[in-house]
Amino acid sequence: MAQSQYLTGDASAINAFLDKFDVFLIDCDGVLWSGDHVFDGVAETLEMLRSRGKKTVFVTNNSTKSRPEYHKKFESMGIPSDVEEIFGSAYSSAIYISRILKLPPPQNKVFVLGEAGIENELRTEGIRFIGGTDPSLRRDITPEDWKGIADGSLLDPEVGVVLAGLDWHINYLKLSHAYQYLRRGAIFLATNVDPTFPMNHNFFPGAGSIGAAPLANMTGQKPVALGKPSQAMMDAIEGKFMLNRERTCMIGDRLDTDIKFGIEGKLGGTLAVLTGVSKRADWEAKDAAAVPAFYVDRLSDLRAAER
Amino acid sequence: MAQSQYLTGDASAINAFLDKFDVFLIDCDGVLWSGDHVFDGVAETLEMLRSRGKKTVFVTNNSTKSRPEYHKKFESMGIPSDVEEIFGSAYSSAIYISRILKLPPPQNKVFVLGEAGIENELRTEGIRFIGGTDPSLRRDITPEDWKGIADGSLLDPEVGVVLAGLDWHINYLKLSHAYQYLRRGAIFLATNVDPTFPMNHNFFPGAGSIGAAPLANMTGQKPVALGKPSQAMMDAIEGKFMLNRERTCMIGDRLDTDIKFGIEGKLGGTLAVLTGVSKRADWEAKDAAAVPAFYVDRLSDLRAAER
Repeated sequence: MAQSQYLTGDASAINAFLDKFDVFLIDCDGVLWSGDHVFDGVAETLEMLRSRGKKTVFVTNNSTKSRPEYHKKFESMGIPSDVEEIFGSAYSSAIYISRILKLPPPQNKVFVLGEAGIENELRTEGIRFIGGTDPSLRRDITPEDWKGIADGSLLDPEVGVVLAGLDWHINYLKLSHAYQYLRRGAIFLATNVDPTFPMNHNFFPGAGSIGAAPLANMTGQKPVALGKPSQAMMDAIEGKFMLNRERTCMIGDRLDTDIKFGIEGKLGGTLAVLTGVSKRADWEAKDAAAVPAFYVDRLSDLRAAER
Repeated sequence: MAQSQYLTGDASAINAFLDKFDVFLIDCDGVLWSGDHVFDGVAETLEMLRSRGKKTVFVTNNSTKSRPEYHKKFESMGIPSDVEEIFGSAYSSAIYISRILKLPPPQNKVFVLGEAGIENELRTEGIRFIGGTDPSLRRDITPEDWKGIADGSLLDPEVGVVLAGLDWHINYLKLSHAYQYLRRGAIFLATNVDPTFPMNHNFFPGAGSIGAAPLANMTGQKPVALGKPSQAMMDAIEGKFMLNRERTCMIGDRLDTDIKFGIEGKLGGTLAVLTGVSKRADWEAKDAAAVPAFYVDRLSDLRAAER
């Protein structure tokens, strides 16, 4: 069983830890904040990392916000950041479609289950899409829909991809469209497959449950996921930031997404914080999803390294 | 590998087949009709069975219609039937809740994902329920919902069961309610877990994909299913009709639901028809879901037995 090194309160161990890395990939919810509550000392900790020449990248499975929208959230929470430091699963999906899939026209349109954040990221990559926030799909299914979806006359023949993200306006009509496109051979992508997400000190249905699970159940196919712990996301991050994986550390609160993501991505290290979902007992368990190389009680414990 | 006996065109084999059984459990879609198209000779075949003293029971996973509603469908299609011969998964669910679960009050209310057919069947069994077609849940989720669902103030403390059926008005708000009830310990039932259902010569999202799959993905739990091939449904049928399983035959078009249902229910026989989903090659395959004891090209081939 791998051991995890506890850094809280040990300034020299923290210094040695920081010296190993040039880049920190940092999960947001459960690390920087919980819901609308920012943890103490987060801004100062990020400042300390940057003052030591470290690059910080915020890696989130949130698919409802584009990078500029997510940047506004950082601002509203008083956390200094640059929009270019933010890497969400909507952006990751857009990058994957435009730079890895590279479908030839005309059959390269994307049918979206999701919100404006996904649409905005697809737009910045020049990707054509339908669905998403289209108000004409926010209604009950009608006899004309049954007929036109079944015979294809209401379907867009140029759709080559179905991208399932978190859609607050999910309904039967949208799922019926998405399913037919998959039946006709569209590629099945998911921004992420998180079953739930934390909100108001509880959990709510996540992208993986709202769009991806129904479609997977209908088709018997699994989507390519573009969020943590999928390595498709790591490849996209590496491509954008030209990082040296050995000198990169993933910081997160979840073993099954963040820490697994870092380990499977063969990063130089992983750091768990105890302000979110996973607890020490989770990685000390025999069937642990992943074991972090290091852990602290909270992100701001790294400030003990300050000179 | 079990062998399947082909009856079409062989009057003496059909007579021998009919003599084995007193009760025929008959699937509807793919056997009696396909969508709105009734197969030729269906009414006459049912008449022939009844004239020989056979009991006919129509067993369907359709959860959107109550028995009286489904009976109207039979009438509109010109198929003689009695409402008491109809056994749908909504009714099966109501029977299971009232006669098998028998939850003590007050925590015995059911949160329904589904349409009026389910509500009507729950009412006939005197079961209290919320959700379903309640128009106040047919809307977007609001900040007040996030808060009240998370802290429980918007939840009904008397809910002890979540019943997931086919809901044409599925949305994020309803799924959030259902998920919270399950998190709080409600029993997880599904009218059926069919991934899709046939419509307009194509397939559309089924009950198993719309409600059950998202909730299963969120909770990591599997529901107790009250439709074919779940034996909970067979137990309910047996309880109602007091049938002798050895003298009962299941007739259907799907190996993975109908034929499996009959075999696992230890019925005296199963008969496959080729007017629906499964084909002969399906049960001749090595990994066949189930092998019917008998098969005909179409239900009306049984009329060759007429004297």
